[in-house]
Amino acid sequence: MKPFMDDNFLLQTETAQQLYHQHAKGLPIIDYHCHLSPQLVAEDHRFRSITELWLGGDHYKWRAMRSNGVDERFCTGTDTTDWEKFEAWAATVPYTLRNPLYHWTHLELKTAFGIDKRLNPETAREIFDACNDRLQNDPDMTARGLMRRYNVEVVCTTDDPVDDLHWHRQVRDEGFEIKMLPAWRPDKAMAVENPDNFRAYVERLGAAADVDIRTFGHFVDALQRRHDFFHAEGSRLSDHGLEEFYAEPYTDSEIDVIFNKVYGGQELTGTEVRKFKSAMLYIFAVQDHASGWVQQYHYGAMRDNNSRMFHQLGPDTGFDSIGEFQTARAMSRFLDLLDGEGHLTKTILYNLNPAANEVVATMLGNFQDGSVAGKIQWGSGWWFLDQKDGMERQMNALSLLGLLSRFVGMLTDSRSFLSYPRHEYFRRTLCNLLGNDIEQGLVPFTGYEEKRVRQMVEDICYYNAKQYFMF
Amino acid sequence: MKPFMDDNFLLQTETAQQLYHQHAKGLPIIDYHCHLSPQLVAEDHRFRSITELWLGGDHYKWRAMRSNGVDERFCTGTDTTDWEKFEAWAATVPYTLRNPLYHWTHLELKTAFGIDKRLNPETAREIFDACNDRLQNDPDMTARGLMRRYNVEVVCTTDDPVDDLHWHRQVRDEGFEIKMLPAWRPDKAMAVENPDNFRAYVERLGAAADVDIRTFGHFVDALQRRHDFFHAEGSRLSDHGLEEFYAEPYTDSEIDVIFNKVYGGQELTGTEVRKFKSAMLYIFAVQDHASGWVQQYHYGAMRDNNSRMFHQLGPDTGFDSIGEFQTARAMSRFLDLLDGEGHLTKTILYNLNPAANEVVATMLGNFQDGSVAGKIQWGSGWWFLDQKDGMERQMNALSLLGLLSRFVGMLTDSRSFLSYPRHEYFRRTLCNLLGNDIEQGLVPFTGYEEKRVRQMVEDICYYNAKQYFMF
Amino acid sequence: MKPFMDDNFLLQTETAQQLYHQHAKGLPIIDYHCHLSPQLVAEDHRFRSITELWLGGDHYKWRAMRSNGVDERFCTGTDTTDWEKFEAWAATVPYTLRNPLYHWTHLELKTAFGIDKRLNPETAREIFDACNDRLQNDPDMTARGLMRRYNVEVVCTTDDPVDDLHWHRQVRDEGFEIKMLPAWRPDKAMAVENPDNFRAYVERLGAAADVDIRTFGHFVDALQRRHDFFHAEGSRLSDHGLEEFYAEPYTDSEIDVIFNKVYGGQELTGTEVRKFKSAMLYIFAVQDHASGWVQQYHYGAMRDNNSRMFHQLGPDTGFDSIGEFQTARAMSRFLDLLDGEGHLTKTILYNLNPAANEVVATMLGNFQDGSVAGKIQWGSGWWFLDQKDGMERQMNALSLLGLLSRFVGMLTDSRSFLSYPRHEYFRRTLCNLLGNDIEQGLVPFTGYEEKRVRQMVEDICYYNAKQYFMF
Repeated sequence: MKPFMDDNFLLQTETAQQLYHQHAKGLPIIDYHCHLSPQLVAEDHRFRSITELWLGGDHYKWRAMRSNGVDERFCTGTDTTDWEKFEAWAATVPYTLRNPLYHWTHLELKTAFGIDKRLNPETAREIFDACNDRLQNDPDMTARGLMRRYNVEVVCTTDDPVDDLHWHRQVRDEGFEIKMLPAWRPDKAMAVENPDNFRAYVERLGAAADVDIRTFGHFVDALQRRHDFFHAEGSRLSDHGLEEFYAEPYTDSEIDVIFNKVYGGQELTGTEVRKFKSAMLYIFAVQDHASGWVQQYHYGAMRDNNSRMFHQLGPDTGFDSIGEFQTARAMSRFLDLLDGEGHLTKTILYNLNPAANEVVATMLGNFQDGSVAGKIQWGSGWWFLDQKDGMERQMNALSLLGLLSRFVGMLTDSRSFLSYPRHEYFRRTLCNLLGNDIEQGLVPFTGYEEKRVRQMVEDICYYNAKQYFMF
Repeated sequence: MKPFMDDNFLLQTETAQQLYHQHAKGLPIIDYHCHLSPQLVAEDHRFRSITELWLGGDHYKWRAMRSNGVDERFCTGTDTTDWEKFEAWAATVPYTLRNPLYHWTHLELKTAFGIDKRLNPETAREIFDACNDRLQNDPDMTARGLMRRYNVEVVCTTDDPVDDLHWHRQVRDEGFEIKMLPAWRPDKAMAVENPDNFRAYVERLGAAADVDIRTFGHFVDALQRRHDFFHAEGSRLSDHGLEEFYAEPYTDSEIDVIFNKVYGGQELTGTEVRKFKSAMLYIFAVQDHASGWVQQYHYGAMRDNNSRMFHQLGPDTGFDSIGEFQTARAMSRFLDLLDGEGHLTKTILYNLNPAANEVVATMLGNFQDGSVAGKIQWGSGWWFLDQKDGMERQMNALSLLGLLSRFVGMLTDSRSFLSYPRHEYFRRTLCNLLGNDIEQGLVPFTGYEEKRVRQMVEDICYYNAKQYFMF
Repeated sequence: MKPFMDDNFLLQTETAQQLYHQHAKGLPIIDYHCHLSPQLVAEDHRFRSITELWLGGDHYKWRAMRSNGVDERFCTGTDTTDWEKFEAWAATVPYTLRNPLYHWTHLELKTAFGIDKRLNPETAREIFDACNDRLQNDPDMTARGLMRRYNVEVVCTTDDPVDDLHWHRQVRDEGFEIKMLPAWRPDKAMAVENPDNFRAYVERLGAAADVDIRTFGHFVDALQRRHDFFHAEGSRLSDHGLEEFYAEPYTDSEIDVIFNKVYGGQELTGTEVRKFKSAMLYIFAVQDHASGWVQQYHYGAMRDNNSRMFHQLGPDTGFDSIGEFQTARAMSRFLDLLDGEGHLTKTILYNLNPAANEVVATMLGNFQDGSVAGKIQWGSGWWFLDQKDGMERQMNALSLLGLLSRFVGMLTDSRSFLSYPRHEYFRRTLCNLLGNDIEQGLVPFTGYEEKRVRQMVEDICYYNAKQYFMF
């Protein structure tokens, strides 16, 4: 029986262990997509407690607690103490066995705090106190200190076009040795379902871009100005959150009319919404291509399923799930349009429903044009799939239907400064897959190919991303 | 090479063996959803032969036989003897290797009859005779005797609202020590596709409830009376067989009109059907919530695909298959409506298409409200998925995307008094998953966590269901 | 560590090794569906180089090269030499580790050329020269020689109804000891989306059948004549490439009108297209049934996603992917119609999206009528799924939801004379699955059942197909 989470955690074979310890472990982290708060980095935030750090905004943990019968007061309540919340979480942890939370929790305790104990009701108080002591007193246990501890080289945050990016500038101007770059997330510029919100957003965009937006042309111009501004501030990456892809036929004049209609406060029809989104997706993509950026698409979530809790807590509070969208045709048309017009930039596709794994994995090859190795990428297991099984299924399908060797690898996609061990988790999983294949004689591991496999591990953990994003 | 089906069948590690033999094996069975005939229990039916018991209504076996080139006469024919049918089945069995039927067959022979031989043409006669001798002569080999033999504590049958439940009452009045409770399956009350059948059903319902049904209001009232009656008779559980979920917007007056139309013998439009079903699903759920019941939804089957055989043999004769329904949005809306209005009772969702596993597994979390641990459940692998791979995929996805610890576990969903070994199969599979994880260092197994894992096995096999259903 | 691709490649247990070497290895190949060029067989083509043989039309390899950043010139260009292309491929091969191409490549080098080296930039020249030397000088390394080398007994090509099959006749008349039979692929006869192309096809069909086609009746008559001709030339098999199944209701007079409309050059509506395809699928199936043929359906590909490359290179050049079609209902209706009318012949269903595996696997049972063992078959992993994982998933799902024992097994579906090792790959995978199950005590392997398992391997590798197709 292998001890729980020892040095060879997840590494079932000697070859896997060798690959991990010799090649993967020591490499820096390029976290090319995350949701860290630039403000906390700029202020080098010190966390008042492990509760703030762990339970302040982590909807994964809240979901687990609710599933375990824990009252909402101990998840998001304002009338409970940090200790009370932590205690409720600690009582839930032993019920999360086999859930990735169990592994994340203990990897984080171990790598950030050096705590090799298991969290449960018996150890809760001791661990709470030990973590808080470190967070309050250890000079290295701040936002920036945590980033340094995990050997982070670059992080890309997720920012709205109207954001003035002053926190990013402050961090850069102060000479923080880890690059924190903004990334462009213009979802609100296509969220025309709610005319009032859209109009308010257009106003903010106009102000940010210093453009008096009265037409769709102005709107696009304002976005372009902000895109240029983001580029000047170091952004090289966009990200789009979609239910599905949109590739409806439309004319420019139709879009002008739709824009005026929604900006004028009128509800759009379903068809109008889809035409407008199709137009925006196209325009965003052309802008990214012109600037030589990478574009990312996260699609397939069904969000805010619980109206009661949405009204109480707002979005991103643990009431989202995997949707059943069929969008291969639109995805294909969208990419085809861009490719045909010479506007297809480097692209990363993330699906949320693993039933679409093979669809996405085979979509890549339709648009690989030989200009850049791995130009079209399939993103690493996202959100609910960001765990051992999800990673393995993504890497296995990518291997079988594309080239694993060219994969740009892991990202945290996280709000937490403690999520970097997910890179370790990913790297161990990768090495384990290769190790198993080698042990079984499925992958050669002598001579030229041994060198290739060793390099492949380093590439997927670090060098492919470095080369691909050119931050 | 491990011998076939020995004591450690399905248990690949020592830890798994320990967990199974020390914790899972000896626990009683709560079979919270099945299709046993209450009459056979009431009459303590004695089976005339293994053919009646095994081939009398088992469409799994008929399907296998037809696939193996066996003529229908030997499946459902009336001009063949018990021996002829058994012989045809015995000749098919060796062709079912790797199919769960092979395992069920031998587990049943072993645990019910103590026969440790493999069924094939060479052993057929001997096994036929041995089984029949026991069935005819052993006082314990009756319907009730078989239930006792498998340490059954509770069974919930599946009953129509018009059923008078007199067999249930008889069994209870006779003091049978195993609880046989009715469960509420009101599918026919929303089957408005066929006006004639629906009208006939309404008449029967009115008679059963002693309500003169002339309006939709009367119809609901009659259902409520039957619901109250079922409650009084011990029912604590409903079950619904759906192709997909329905959550169309509707008004009460629309439903009144639709009811009058279909009751008046007119065909409904597709939209009307969906509105009516949406209304009924809602009303059923509100009734269940008011009574503190658990509601179950089995969705996704595409039934009666073979018209020729449907006309010959009727439903449930082996011509159903897995459908391709996309219903996550409607499922979400339905549960959201109930949750928003405070009417969401404990709920179990069963999907038939494993491609929806992750969709359902992540749906649960949207409506876990902290009031009850595991309030929203994902049902164990159903029908075609009720086998080792299906169970493993369900338990793995549940583990990764929810809390396996809170799972209410296995049910037979069967018409057969010989299906209880499926609980053994499930328990072995569960212990094997945990054992593998422990051996690999993925789950800790010392101190507090060892106790937790041991308890977790017992919980999933028995205590969670006991606590959840409170029969 | 097992050496790469040794004699026991893919065979993880001793039992698997025994099953493979004693039962699977030596059996002839019935390649019941492929895309070999009859002309190359007739001319006993000698390949000028390994580049022609490997890269002349292999879109799998082109896709991998494009994904690896290789310029199109080295894939399909006309201004590059055989060596330049081979060199580019050899440089890509080490990046295909974990992709089936890596295994196919080395299995082909080993079994066709006796080369046990790994292809990479260091060995490229040596392997290129060695292969070319053999191809140019070894009398056995021709089209027919390769077929003999792999112990092929029958191949069925894929032919259009208008084909005069003279290459087939020539091969037969020359007394080539391997049967090369035509197979009927009438896709163009239902491709009514493009009226001009359809009309041109109708003209060709009329000429081939010597029928003056002026009505739909004539059209069907011409097809029947060609079907009879194919039958006379030895065809016993049809094949249909579909996005999805079609089972729209239609009347004969509607189809007459639709035929006249499209033949007259007018675009059809979507509904008309679906009605026409429904009619043609039905007619094709009735013709096949009348002749006692087997019908095959390959469905679910989304083709020609890249318009730019389609215009440059045409179809089948590596720009196809897995679609998201939901067609279970239509598939069921189509098969039900045929079954109900007594026109359902032996049928093989191939899905491209593995998310539909369980849907197809359970569809079979709806139409198994006991007349022939395994009458309705689920085709072996197709196209993107034709690899270890795809084969395993297909065989596992078939085992769990049907009868693996009755499976007709592997086919190459290939254009290449070097694809026969895929049968070896399949056979090893099959034996490995069985070996693992036996070692774990899931499948018995003594006495009667040992014989059954041994026979089962031979059946799936050879005898089931021999019996099923009766070529």
